[in-house]
Amino acid sequence: MTILVAVSGWEAGPWVRRLQELAPQRRVLETGIDGVFAGDPVDLEDVRYVLAWKPHPELLASLTNLQVLFSLGAGVDHILDLPALPSTLTDVPIARIVDADLTARMSEYVAWQVLHHHRQGFAHARLQAEHHWQELKQPAAGEVTVGIMGLGVLGRDAAEVLCRLGFRVIGWSRTEKTVDGVVTYHGKTGFDVFLGQSDILVSLLPLTPATTGLINHSLISRLKRDGPLGGPVLINAGRGGSQIDADIAAALADGTLAGASLDVFEEEPLPPESPLWGLTNLAITPHVAAVSSPKALARNIIDQITAFESGQPLQNLVDPARGY
Amino acid sequence: MTILVAVSGWEAGPWVRRLQELAPQRRVLETGIDGVFAGDPVDLEDVRYVLAWKPHPELLASLTNLQVLFSLGAGVDHILDLPALPSTLTDVPIARIVDADLTARMSEYVAWQVLHHHRQGFAHARLQAEHHWQELKQPAAGEVTVGIMGLGVLGRDAAEVLCRLGFRVIGWSRTEKTVDGVVTYHGKTGFDVFLGQSDILVSLLPLTPATTGLINHSLISRLKRDGPLGGPVLINAGRGGSQIDADIAAALADGTLAGASLDVFEEEPLPPESPLWGLTNLAITPHVAAVSSPKALARNIIDQITAFESGQPLQNLVDPARGY
Repeated sequence: MTILVAVSGWEAGPWVRRLQELAPQRRVLETGIDGVFAGDPVDLEDVRYVLAWKPHPELLASLTNLQVLFSLGAGVDHILDLPALPSTLTDVPIARIVDADLTARMSEYVAWQVLHHHRQGFAHARLQAEHHWQELKQPAAGEVTVGIMGLGVLGRDAAEVLCRLGFRVIGWSRTEKTVDGVVTYHGKTGFDVFLGQSDILVSLLPLTPATTGLINHSLISRLKRDGPLGGPVLINAGRGGSQIDADIAAALADGTLAGASLDVFEEEPLPPESPLWGLTNLAITPHVAAVSSPKALARNIIDQITAFESGQPLQNLVDPARGY
Repeated sequence: MTILVAVSGWEAGPWVRRLQELAPQRRVLETGIDGVFAGDPVDLEDVRYVLAWKPHPELLASLTNLQVLFSLGAGVDHILDLPALPSTLTDVPIARIVDADLTARMSEYVAWQVLHHHRQGFAHARLQAEHHWQELKQPAAGEVTVGIMGLGVLGRDAAEVLCRLGFRVIGWSRTEKTVDGVVTYHGKTGFDVFLGQSDILVSLLPLTPATTGLINHSLISRLKRDGPLGGPVLINAGRGGSQIDADIAAALADGTLAGASLDVFEEEPLPPESPLWGLTNLAITPHVAAVSSPKALARNIIDQITAFESGQPLQNLVDPARGY
């Protein structure tokens, strides 16, 4: 019942150590930071479970006895978008790890950035730089509508936190969903009504063909314009592929957007020459809104494997046709 | 049953209009922005209720039929610290307006600034200015202890919000208090144990003789030093008189404090020459953490007056000996 940690761009070490601590009786293999497995290829035949982040398709193809593929991170585009998804994966269930730790970190980020724009963080920093004491008109949270796109585990938790802070929260998702305290819309028909009410738009959408390039000039121009923040605000903590960086930069420069917070970008790392870096009404973070912690997630994965082996269903299964 | 709005430094107009809307049958008088009543002094004999912010003692002394003094704002030092508190006030109850709107705004501010330091807002802004993509080590909220000084309505609400965000929350107050999910300490004996656990110290204390100058070098040096934020953080949204500005500036400059957020200052407005303005690990706001909104508070006051006149007890009564 060997586990393979197959990650590109991350050190597998912390994951392997944590898994071995929690399940000392299991064998845990790992790739290098380049995603390549340097051990004896024969060992791969024993691999039943993969923990994957941007795995190599050839590596996946050599796992002939794979039973479950766990995606590290809530999004699975890094697996489904592989240029050649091996046929060996056709019948292997893919499970997303949506851990309480990851969810809490995302809600921290969303609350932080919503409050930053709501409480005029950029304007206060400018006044401080000018040594200028000036009270700004401050709306109450209840006068501000936050629209959340994506009402999965992350979106629902963020909505709950924002409701507790007093914001009016509305939500939009592909299919109909119900969230306590939140007015929800869904599908194409509900989209414009949703956008037209959103003072602050928060995207937690997965990257799928339907969401690719969705946050573009057209979407931005349909956001609520006469709210109390002097213009709409965009926060994207989903996937960079869902946005058009150039459209956001133009909207921030010409005032179509009053402000934005981006944790994700079309190209990551964001190139040093991107005009986004220099925009004074944009807060950039380097795809860290909710970074998976080995400590918290390894426990979740071992618990899921144990449950799976005793015949219980897997959690957060991915539907490859749907894309998440 | 005349109401007088007696405010120095604020326009009384919005309060008066809102009170008249809610209670058209009552007479509402107002001072100028200088706190002086320019009308017929005889009218002051009819005044039963005063809504006060930094009222003039001579004006208060002329209110011979005053029944209740309402303090606009949660703190009452602007009344109790008057150089000559008129003897006419001796038997007049003073009530603080602790409104849901004001409470929610304070919790917004506290959550905003706690998240700003926890999520390394200053460091991310510096990296953005350098066009530099770099992931910082990010602790989970549960690894960070927020210590709240002052467990009245504001402190308890902020604690609840911070608990929901996943922080470990402890509290300290003058007398023993119990708050769900919060480990509480009180009095002199509990103070050092409380400070020694606080990664982020939030002061919501009223200004009293006991709290004057409390946040000084000695207090700052007793905060937890080996937490996950690289040093302790101070947030003061209580009263500037509780802090020694120079001690905070020195602690921020020499690293005794990793960061701070100050909404209040010993002298307000903060003078342009204060060294605090230029500190890059300090977020300054101009005493706006929780600004009373006439719309929300006028309703609260009219409801309290109506209840008082029907024989019900006043809410949030001040004990002048205690100072809040």
